[in-house]
Amino acid sequence: MIPQGIAYAFLAGLPAEVGIYSSLLPALLYVVLGTSRVLSVGPVSIAAIMVASALASPEVVAIGTPVQNAMILALEGGLILCLMSMLRMGGLVHYISQPVLTGFTTGAAIIIVFSQLPKMLGLDLTSCESLQACFIDPSIQINTATMGLGLLAVALLFLMGSPLNFLLSKLKVKKTIATAITKSAPLLSISLGIILVTQFSLDIEHQVAIVGEIPQGLPTPSIEFLNVSLAHMLALLPSAFFISLIAYVESVAIAKFIASVRNEKLDTNQELVGLGAANLASSFTGGMPVAGGFSRTMVNYAAGAQSQMAMLIAVIVLAAALLSVSQTLESIPKAVLASIIIIAVAPLIKVKAIISTWKSDKADGISQLVTLLGVLILGIEEGIVLGVVATIFSYMRRTSKPHIAVVGKIHDTDHFRNIKRHKVQTWEDLLLIRIDENITFANINYISEFIEHEYQLYSPKQIVLIFSSVSYIDTTAVSYFRQLISNLKQQGTTLNLAEVKGPVLEILEKINFVSDLSPGKIFFQTSDAVKSFVK
Amino acid sequence: MIPQGIAYAFLAGLPAEVGIYSSLLPALLYVVLGTSRVLSVGPVSIAAIMVASALASPEVVAIGTPVQNAMILALEGGLILCLMSMLRMGGLVHYISQPVLTGFTTGAAIIIVFSQLPKMLGLDLTSCESLQACFIDPSIQINTATMGLGLLAVALLFLMGSPLNFLLSKLKVKKTIATAITKSAPLLSISLGIILVTQFSLDIEHQVAIVGEIPQGLPTPSIEFLNVSLAHMLALLPSAFFISLIAYVESVAIAKFIASVRNEKLDTNQELVGLGAANLASSFTGGMPVAGGFSRTMVNYAAGAQSQMAMLIAVIVLAAALLSVSQTLESIPKAVLASIIIIAVAPLIKVKAIISTWKSDKADGISQLVTLLGVLILGIEEGIVLGVVATIFSYMRRTSKPHIAVVGKIHDTDHFRNIKRHKVQTWEDLLLIRIDENITFANINYISEFIEHEYQLYSPKQIVLIFSSVSYIDTTAVSYFRQLISNLKQQGTTLNLAEVKGPVLEILEKINFVSDLSPGKIFFQTSDAVKSFVK
Repeated sequence: MIPQGIAYAFLAGLPAEVGIYSSLLPALLYVVLGTSRVLSVGPVSIAAIMVASALASPEVVAIGTPVQNAMILALEGGLILCLMSMLRMGGLVHYISQPVLTGFTTGAAIIIVFSQLPKMLGLDLTSCESLQACFIDPSIQINTATMGLGLLAVALLFLMGSPLNFLLSKLKVKKTIATAITKSAPLLSISLGIILVTQFSLDIEHQVAIVGEIPQGLPTPSIEFLNVSLAHMLALLPSAFFISLIAYVESVAIAKFIASVRNEKLDTNQELVGLGAANLASSFTGGMPVAGGFSRTMVNYAAGAQSQMAMLIAVIVLAAALLSVSQTLESIPKAVLASIIIIAVAPLIKVKAIISTWKSDKADGISQLVTLLGVLILGIEEGIVLGVVATIFSYMRRTSKPHIAVVGKIHDTDHFRNIKRHKVQTWEDLLLIRIDENITFANINYISEFIEHEYQLYSPKQIVLIFSSVSYIDTTAVSYFRQLISNLKQQGTTLNLAEVKGPVLEILEKINFVSDLSPGKIFFQTSDAVKSFVK
Repeated sequence: MIPQGIAYAFLAGLPAEVGIYSSLLPALLYVVLGTSRVLSVGPVSIAAIMVASALASPEVVAIGTPVQNAMILALEGGLILCLMSMLRMGGLVHYISQPVLTGFTTGAAIIIVFSQLPKMLGLDLTSCESLQACFIDPSIQINTATMGLGLLAVALLFLMGSPLNFLLSKLKVKKTIATAITKSAPLLSISLGIILVTQFSLDIEHQVAIVGEIPQGLPTPSIEFLNVSLAHMLALLPSAFFISLIAYVESVAIAKFIASVRNEKLDTNQELVGLGAANLASSFTGGMPVAGGFSRTMVNYAAGAQSQMAMLIAVIVLAAALLSVSQTLESIPKAVLASIIIIAVAPLIKVKAIISTWKSDKADGISQLVTLLGVLILGIEEGIVLGVVATIFSYMRRTSKPHIAVVGKIHDTDHFRNIKRHKVQTWEDLLLIRIDENITFANINYISEFIEHEYQLYSPKQIVLIFSSVSYIDTTAVSYFRQLISNLKQQGTTLNLAEVKGPVLEILEKINFVSDLSPGKIFFQTSDAVKSFVK
C-alpha cells in the first residue's frame, strides 16, 4: 500500500502524502460499508491518470491548488456514487460494454506508460516542444543515475513477477507464501531505492529526483478545502463524474470476479455506498479519488483473507508507518515509482483481447477501437464518451434490423419455420411472417418495409404476423401498424396477428388496436390462423 | 407561398424577401431531384423558429448579419443532408421516435405562438424586463389599430378553415374547389391587410408595423456570403445540423404519409439529395433553410397534383409576382403575418396525442414530456437532444430486462411453455430456461442474475438455455457465459444450449465457445435435450 499509494499520487501529479492518506480512512470506511470481503480500496492507476488529466486542464489549473482540486474531485465523486445508490442506478454501469472497457483501460495504460517512461529513464523532456521532437533530438538530457535506478527497479519488479512465481511453484512453495514473496516486489524495490539514494547521496550528487518532504503524522480531517466558489465546484463536476463512474465499474468488476470464484453474493448497490463513503472520507482527510485496486485485492485474495480484517490490519500498520518512517520515505527515487507504475499497468494493455474481439465481432471491435483511439487522440474522458456512444449506436443499428422471416408449415406438424431454410408448406392468399424481436421506433421502419416488400411479392388476401418473440411494442410502432392496416384494407388485404404474448395483448387492448385490426383477428396459435383461412 | 414565405422569414427574424427567395430555386431543385410527386419545399414554421433561435444566440449575433448567417445555415444544412445521403445515413432519422417528434413540434409550436401573440395583438413589450412582468403590467402599450388587424385576420383565417370547409361540404361543393377556397385564406387576409393599411394610411397615422421595403426583381446567385472565417462557419454548424435533421424528418414524414395514401414508393435516400440540393440552392440565392411544408403539400395533394408540374407553375407565378407586385407586398401589416403563423402552427400543439401516449405507454410518455419541457425550458436544440437521449435510455433500460422464463413441457406435445403460465411437466435435475431476446452487454447482467437465481432455487445437474429467440450474442455476453460455465462446473452442473439459430451458432463456433461448453452440448430441439437427460 505504501509504494502504490505514493506512486499513484505521483502519477496524478500530487504530493506523496495524498496517496498515503487515501489509503487510510477510505479503506476503513469501505471495510464497514462495502460488501466484498476482499476488495482493497485506495488510489488506483486508472483513476490517478484521470485525476492527472482533470487537474491539467487549463480551466482547472487556473483555480485552486492541485491538492485542493483532487479533494474536491473525491468529494464530488463520493456524492455522485451515493446519489446513484439512492436512485438505484448502479445498473447504469452495464451500459459500458466489455470492449469499451478494454479499449479504455488499454488506452489509459498506454498513456500512463508514456508519461512514466521519461521519468523512469531520467530523460529531461521539459525543453522539448513535443514528445516526438524529444525522442528524435540527440541532444536530449539523460540522467544516468536515474536511468540506472529505473532500469534496476524494472528488472527487479519484472523478475519478481511471473518468473519468480514460476520458480516458486516449481520448488513447491505454498501458494500463500509465494504470493507474499512476489507481491513484496514494490516494497523491496523502493527499499533498495532508498538505500541506494541515501548511501550514495544520489539526490545531491547526481540530481536523482526523490519524493521529498512528507508531513509526519496522520491527516487531520478538515473541510477547509470547500472554501471555494460554486463555479469552481461545477468546473470539476464532469471529471468527478467520469472518475467515479470508472472507479465504480473497475471496483465492481474486481469484486464480482472474486465473488464468483468464491461463490459469494455481491450487492452492487451497496458497493456504491461503500465506494461513495470511501471517496467522501478521502476528500475530508486530504486524499484523492479512490477505487478498488486489482493487484492489492489479489494479494488479499491469494493470502486467503476471509474477512476485511486483513484490510483493517493493513491500515493500522500503514498509519504506524506514517507516524514513524515518513522521513525515510522522503528518499524514494521517483524513477523507482515510475517503474512500479509501468510494471503495474503493463498487463492492462490487452493487445491480444483487442485482436480477438476484432476477429470475432466487427461491431464490438469497432467500438473497442473507437474507444482506444478516442482515449489516445482526444483524451481519456472523451474516449469513454465516444466508446459508449459507439456501442449504443451499433446496438441501435443492430436492433434496427431484427430477424424477421416468412414462414411455412412443416408437413404433419404444428411447427412453422423459415421458408428459406426449411421445406415447408405455404398457401396462396395467406402470408405468414414471424417477427423475432420487440417492435419499437428503432426497428419498425425495417419491419414495415419488409412486410410491404413481401406483400408486393405474394399479394395475399390475408397476412398473419406471428408475435411469438414480441414482448413489447411501442407508440411509434403502433402508429406504423395503424397506417399499414389502413393501406392494406384499401387494397382488400387483411392483417392478422398470432401468438401474441399477454403483456403485448394488454397494450394493444388498452389503445383499441384490436378494433383497428378488425376484420383482422388475433389468433392464439399460428395453426389456428391457418385452419381459419385455408379451406 | 407568398404569405407563408414572408411570414416564416419574419418568424426567423429575417427580411421578407429571404422567405420569397427560399420559395423559388429551392422548390425547383426539389422538383428535379426529389422523389415525392406532391411535396412542396420552402420555408416552414419549425425550421424558421430554429433559425430564429440559432441567430439569436449571443456568439452568433456577434458575427455576421442575420441574412448572411441564415444563408450559411442553409449551406451547411444542405451539405450535411448530401453527406448523409452519400453515407446512406437516412435511416438515422428513425432514432427520433414519434413521441419525441410530437413533444418537439408541440414545444416549438408553443414557443412560436408566444413569440407571435404580442405582434398580433400590437403589444409593445420592448420596455418589459420579462414576459410575465409585461402581461401583468397595466401600463402596457397597446396599438389598437394593430390589434384590430390581427384579430380580424385571425377571425378570417379561423373561419375560412374547418368551419368553411364544413359549410362547403354541406353545400356539396367539389372537394378540389373547396380546398382551393379554404387554402386561399392567408392570401385573402394579407390582401385585406394591404387594402386597409393603404386605404387608411394605418402605417403612418396609427404606427401599424408593416413589412417595409422589399427589393424588386429576382435574387442574383452569389457566393459572397461565404467570405467568412472558419470559426464563423463552425459556430453555426451545430444549429445547421439540428435544423437540417428536423427539416428532413418532417419532410419525409409528410412525403411518406402522402406516398402511402397514394400507394407510391418513396426513396428516403434520394429525398436527402433533393432536400440537400434545395437547401444549397437556397443558400446561394439569398434564402434560408427550407423543408417540405405540410399545409402547402396538402394543397398540392388535395388539388390532385399528379406530378411536380404544379410546383413548377407555382414557382413561375411567384417569380412573376416578385417582378411586378413587390411594391404592394411592402404594405402587408406584420400583425396579419403573425396571425397567419399562429393559425398555421396551432394544429401542431397536440395535447390530445400527448395525453393518449402518456396513458398507453409510460416510457414513451416520459420521453415525450422530457422533450416538450426541454424545448420550452432549455431551448429547441437542447430539447431534441434531451428527448433522443431519454428515448435511447428508456430503450436500453427496457431491452436490459428481456423476457426470460423457466419452461416445462406441455403433456403429450413437443411444446415448451412458461411454468408460471401453463400446466407443464418438469424434471428434477433438469432446468430449462428460454431467453427471448438477443443477448448483449445491455441485458447480460439481468440474464446471468436470473439464471443464478433459478439455479439456487432448483440446484439442477443440467441447465438447458433455449435460444430460439436469440439472433445475436455479443462479446460481453460471451465472456459472462464463460464465467457462468466455469462457476457451474465447479459445482458439478453442466450448461447446455438448445434451438440455437444459424448465425449465433456461427459466432459461437468462431470463438471456440463450443469447446468451453463441453461436456455441455448444443441440441437442435429442446425435446432432444429432454430425451437425452431424462431416462
